[in-house]
Amino acid sequence: MSSIVTVMADEIAEQPEAIRRTLDALLPLREELRGLFAGRRRVSFVARGSSDNAATYGRYLLEACAGVSAALAAPSIATHYRADLDLTDTLLVAVSQSGATTEIVECVDWARSHGAAIVSVTNVADSPLAKGADVALVTRAGPEVAVPATKTYLTQLVAMAVLADALGADLEQDLARVADEVAGAVRGAELVEPAVALLRDAAHVVVTGRGLCLGTALETALKIEETSLTPVRGYSYADLRHGPISVIEPSVVAVLVAASDGPMLEPMTALADDLRRRGARVVGIGGDTPFARTCDVHVPGPDLPEPVAPLGLVVPAQLLVEQLARARGHDPDNPRGLAKVTRTDSH
Amino acid sequence: MSSIVTVMADEIAEQPEAIRRTLDALLPLREELRGLFAGRRRVSFVARGSSDNAATYGRYLLEACAGVSAALAAPSIATHYRADLDLTDTLLVAVSQSGATTEIVECVDWARSHGAAIVSVTNVADSPLAKGADVALVTRAGPEVAVPATKTYLTQLVAMAVLADALGADLEQDLARVADEVAGAVRGAELVEPAVALLRDAAHVVVTGRGLCLGTALETALKIEETSLTPVRGYSYADLRHGPISVIEPSVVAVLVAASDGPMLEPMTALADDLRRRGARVVGIGGDTPFARTCDVHVPGPDLPEPVAPLGLVVPAQLLVEQLARARGHDPDNPRGLAKVTRTDSH
Repeated sequence: MSSIVTVMADEIAEQPEAIRRTLDALLPLREELRGLFAGRRRVSFVARGSSDNAATYGRYLLEACAGVSAALAAPSIATHYRADLDLTDTLLVAVSQSGATTEIVECVDWARSHGAAIVSVTNVADSPLAKGADVALVTRAGPEVAVPATKTYLTQLVAMAVLADALGADLEQDLARVADEVAGAVRGAELVEPAVALLRDAAHVVVTGRGLCLGTALETALKIEETSLTPVRGYSYADLRHGPISVIEPSVVAVLVAASDGPMLEPMTALADDLRRRGARVVGIGGDTPFARTCDVHVPGPDLPEPVAPLGLVVPAQLLVEQLARARGHDPDNPRGLAKVTRTDSH
Repeated sequence: MSSIVTVMADEIAEQPEAIRRTLDALLPLREELRGLFAGRRRVSFVARGSSDNAATYGRYLLEACAGVSAALAAPSIATHYRADLDLTDTLLVAVSQSGATTEIVECVDWARSHGAAIVSVTNVADSPLAKGADVALVTRAGPEVAVPATKTYLTQLVAMAVLADALGADLEQDLARVADEVAGAVRGAELVEPAVALLRDAAHVVVTGRGLCLGTALETALKIEETSLTPVRGYSYADLRHGPISVIEPSVVAVLVAASDGPMLEPMTALADDLRRRGARVVGIGGDTPFARTCDVHVPGPDLPEPVAPLGLVVPAQLLVEQLARARGHDPDNPRGLAKVTRTDSH
């Protein structure tokens, strides 16, 4: 199947350069970000879809590695309830690849009028969100043509890491290694083939990850669902354990995403073992050797420490998504019913 | 099927009294809650499973109706990453019906050591969480024997509403009407039968709600999944619209939960219409007459305004869950593989 070249595959392969361009553009803005945050105490992310998954990474990264309280905002609090909150202690980070998602623009206007400082993460320099921010983190993914976000998503993760580095995490040296690791993953595209074979005929697919890798798991689930037009559930580790694990049956294929180090590796390995005992088949992405041995099928991840591992882990997941869509007879570049600019309400 | 009486059905029927007892016990604590919050700026909830769904309601209620910033904390930030956050501006609300969930107790210890004030919402007065809190909101559900939480969940919602009232929402008069509305829903248990008939043979079930009713939707999904041992997906309105809606197929039954007023009613009605156009069958719970007419099958909700509507809306959902489990040949009181005290990690 690797003889067919899709736009999505091309865009996956462009990511090492997109990462380098984005780092070059955004690292110099760290001083400005620190200045904007001075006197404020927390970060609130507002996003939808893939951008929300990038924000989930940003939220864990800020709390776990930068010591900054962070949370995901509920957009409807702004757009529908028009709540009267005091946001003078808040840095609002709006994430939208187009920079034009109406709902997110409304949230930014609301947050500013309630005292928040605004950072935007977009891929379009002259978009409303980029122009309306106190600091605009414009990712350098270049134009993205395939409907499934790949390089715009990965460069959003870069922006999250730069923000966290600016606010206290120490990530610069690790970030410098990401582009090469991603290039290595792209060269090893055929390593996802056993996972594609296992997933192709799966009746039920669940994807899970934990902590810093939760966003990667949710993004992987969303992308499989979008491109293969089959229901796929993204779960947090805890949500899977609390209830749904009892409905795991032999027809389920569980995809587990893990970094090669950090406090989540042991529980993720135990989860893989537990799922297999319940009869599920397990695809592991990343992790270490014991994790890999616990899975039915394993796709190697990057050699990156947990705080930046999500930037490398999403690449094998993207390759899996692209090949799986084709294996299931779909066009990954243009799955039915999806537009590039997200819109929550039809009006 | 209504001739079989389960413990779960009994416990659903006990809720009007449980609500009255809980309101009598908790309303007098409002002054103490206000004193504890004085000088703090935000509320952070920590919970798992059903309690997390109650916290989701509390979070929207505080922001939309009390003007207090609120968010759901990620427990692993405390338990695994041991992050160093400044929580001196934070009221942490720990929600656990047993009051003994190890992970939540760990989160409380961590939050206190980082400066947070602690409120706990539990059903067990001498539990670690109740004893370790600055203010303990002990719900008066009484002992709950069936595995699916019903009256412990609903009284958690009461506690959320009392907290929001204490911090600035004006809910007391509406809360006084909840017990009677719940009693009316219990008397009308047979009104869920058409929904049970539609859901009994559904291959795929999704449940959605928005804003103040999102927690009710997530709880309904979790409970159908727990008791009928079938995968059910709970979605936010936006998450359903952004991607997954494209995989809605005629085999899907979508359950939509809506209040009878408020800013979410119109978009929820439009969503029902959209889902039906895509071939899904729609079960509506609550809403108004136009909403009901847009659904294939409708279960009436309470006559309560949106801020407290979730306390009434969950009751027809519980009745549906109980009858559906039996219709599918399961024992709702004791679904396989679930214990009453949640535990995220096996160690």
